[in-house]
Amino acid sequence: MKKYLTEFIGTFFLILTVVLVTNNPAYATMAPLAIAGMYLAMIYAGGHISGGHYNPAVTFALLIRRKIDRGDALYYIMVQLVASVVAAAIGVYLHGCGNGATIVPRLNEQTMCAVLAEFLGTFALVFVVLNVATTRSNAGNSHYGFAIGFASLAVGYALGGLSGGAFNPAIALGATVADMFAWEDIPVYLIGDLLGAAVAATVFQVTYGPED
Amino acid sequence: MKKYLTEFIGTFFLILTVVLVTNNPAYATMAPLAIAGMYLAMIYAGGHISGGHYNPAVTFALLIRRKIDRGDALYYIMVQLVASVVAAAIGVYLHGCGNGATIVPRLNEQTMCAVLAEFLGTFALVFVVLNVATTRSNAGNSHYGFAIGFASLAVGYALGGLSGGAFNPAIALGATVADMFAWEDIPVYLIGDLLGAAVAATVFQVTYGPED
Amino acid sequence: MKKYLTEFIGTFFLILTVVLVTNNPAYATMAPLAIAGMYLAMIYAGGHISGGHYNPAVTFALLIRRKIDRGDALYYIMVQLVASVVAAAIGVYLHGCGNGATIVPRLNEQTMCAVLAEFLGTFALVFVVLNVATTRSNAGNSHYGFAIGFASLAVGYALGGLSGGAFNPAIALGATVADMFAWEDIPVYLIGDLLGAAVAATVFQVTYGPED
Amino acid sequence: MKKYLTEFIGTFFLILTVVLVTNNPAYATMAPLAIAGMYLAMIYAGGHISGGHYNPAVTFALLIRRKIDRGDALYYIMVQLVASVVAAAIGVYLHGCGNGATIVPRLNEQTMCAVLAEFLGTFALVFVVLNVATTRSNAGNSHYGFAIGFASLAVGYALGGLSGGAFNPAIALGATVADMFAWEDIPVYLIGDLLGAAVAATVFQVTYGPED
Repeated sequence: MKKYLTEFIGTFFLILTVVLVTNNPAYATMAPLAIAGMYLAMIYAGGHISGGHYNPAVTFALLIRRKIDRGDALYYIMVQLVASVVAAAIGVYLHGCGNGATIVPRLNEQTMCAVLAEFLGTFALVFVVLNVATTRSNAGNSHYGFAIGFASLAVGYALGGLSGGAFNPAIALGATVADMFAWEDIPVYLIGDLLGAAVAATVFQVTYGPED
Repeated sequence: MKKYLTEFIGTFFLILTVVLVTNNPAYATMAPLAIAGMYLAMIYAGGHISGGHYNPAVTFALLIRRKIDRGDALYYIMVQLVASVVAAAIGVYLHGCGNGATIVPRLNEQTMCAVLAEFLGTFALVFVVLNVATTRSNAGNSHYGFAIGFASLAVGYALGGLSGGAFNPAIALGATVADMFAWEDIPVYLIGDLLGAAVAATVFQVTYGPED
Repeated sequence: MKKYLTEFIGTFFLILTVVLVTNNPAYATMAPLAIAGMYLAMIYAGGHISGGHYNPAVTFALLIRRKIDRGDALYYIMVQLVASVVAAAIGVYLHGCGNGATIVPRLNEQTMCAVLAEFLGTFALVFVVLNVATTRSNAGNSHYGFAIGFASLAVGYALGGLSGGAFNPAIALGATVADMFAWEDIPVYLIGDLLGAAVAATVFQVTYGPED
Repeated sequence: MKKYLTEFIGTFFLILTVVLVTNNPAYATMAPLAIAGMYLAMIYAGGHISGGHYNPAVTFALLIRRKIDRGDALYYIMVQLVASVVAAAIGVYLHGCGNGATIVPRLNEQTMCAVLAEFLGTFALVFVVLNVATTRSNAGNSHYGFAIGFASLAVGYALGGLSGGAFNPAIALGATVADMFAWEDIPVYLIGDLLGAAVAATVFQVTYGPED
């Protein structure tokens, strides 16, 4: 179950990034960088649990190479396809909220979209942090900062047009002081970011489990 | 033989990326990033087999430094030059298919080009995955996610204009659900991506060999 | 105290980068890359001291995961919020100096802004260097060059429009010889850069302490 | 002597990249990425010999931190300043050749500039390769591909407008087959690239010395 959930999360955020970034004209030239950022962050986050496939072609190649058994491969591919459909649906919904309508961070009028964007972005960021920087099976690595940095890059490009892209209450506060966000929008960031962090911590406990 | 095949693959994808990206006005400012992405991904993928030269000047310097013997150096350079000509020919063919005509991913009308682009992109991506994430001589490294991520970046910039740049059936499905690809084009991705993965797995077995 | 000071520095530069880059139209498409660069550089710089949170949502998730105790978490979040307000205030001041008015490096007429920009950029760069490349708890890592390089990237995008972005007296000299900076502006770089380096070295001694 | 020569090379290429990229309007938005790429590649290349300062402010901070003695620090700073002036002079000469006049790789009419650009770019690339991928003091690292990839990125942005940016005879051949370069310009690449590789190998032997 842990492996399948991890494959779901990684594939979901990969496809969500694809849908939102490639359809945002403001960031069109950056799309492959943004997608690569999410992909590599999720590989570092989930690699120690599921292997970090997120791609039926990769699962297929590992089946040929006998690094995964037939039953697991089937489940992996099914989970990846389900994650893809869910991500596409949410991506289309968020795109419809006006992603890319403006580059300067401003809260989208549709508050629900902004909360959802903050929730998803913070979830992805915190999920990566918990996996690469706090686990024993990832201890002593040299990639933790890289994985976290590129997770923030990816959610910035993918979701920044919807909520201003804080994913961090301190950034939300600073941006408000700098008159980039409105004071009345502070709850959007508090709710979205803390909920995203709490859900990420909970899902992490499920996918990673106790350390001993 | 394994070393020469590895040099061929790395040099081929390096030159292919050069030809396609530098001639695509939409991505002109990103060309050095895309080329660097392919170059470093292939260095990580092939370094443990051939040293990952992909450049006669590098082979020449290593000959001076006596890290390669004269006969091997000659073969390396010959293989690199042959790979370059083949890559240029295929690159010109693909460029002629209308690469860069549009940024928004849409299936090129010339279906053969799209299948070829998906095949090549998936091959490169899976070849990198198999080498950096599943081999003993690369175990415990901190660069696997980085290499895979930048391989996806490079094929996205180089080939994305031809097929929409899925290189992953789950992305193809999600993009179709999001109305970015057409349902009747699904076979393009299924055939291109699974064939790319299968050929990459086969070539990998040849270049890497059994582990014990 | 060392942990709180480290959290202050990391969060301060993260928010400062956000405010300056996202409000600079010349670099709008690069904003997520610049922010990610500063974020990951500061994670590598401060991770061995405070854990490198710089984000109340991350602190909150680590509290749930019991990697930080309740009292510490409260102080972390308070420090992060204070750093954010200070960064926003300085960011707004610097933005008002005409950041982004021109891409070609030219010394801003408001000399004070240029000195401040050079001071802040050099401080960030040298603080990262001292932490990732000269400490025992970071010895033998593979990320030092990456962290330093991306620190320079981030300060280049964030502060480059104000002072030309040297953060290095040798770059200032070369740019002056190349007629990009004026000879009479040399003191700006000498004072800003050497002061930034000296303060960074002092703060580093405080946050890192003696090695034995 | 080895340390000073290494500081000279690293600082030289850092300043050369600054002068050429920031004055090239085609790549203005990418300047901080290109400069960071050269900086980090040279840090990885020279770090094991001189510490990879390339910046008087860094040397000054390390003097305060007592990681370098007073005499050495003085020589480091002098060498950095000399390297900066030389780089600025060559950068201005190369910029005058018409750097950035066109994005599509085409051989500059002034053949000497193209040969010089190929020589410098190949030297930088090969010098990085020799240091990060063939030395014992850098063995087992996870950054070799990253350093080489970002060296190629930096020389691509800095010098690509002058010679087309091959730095690799195989790329030159492929680009010629693809009708991007002219057949009569092949000697430019052969001479520039092989000379760059040979000089890099020689300088490397001097700076690194025998391994036992």
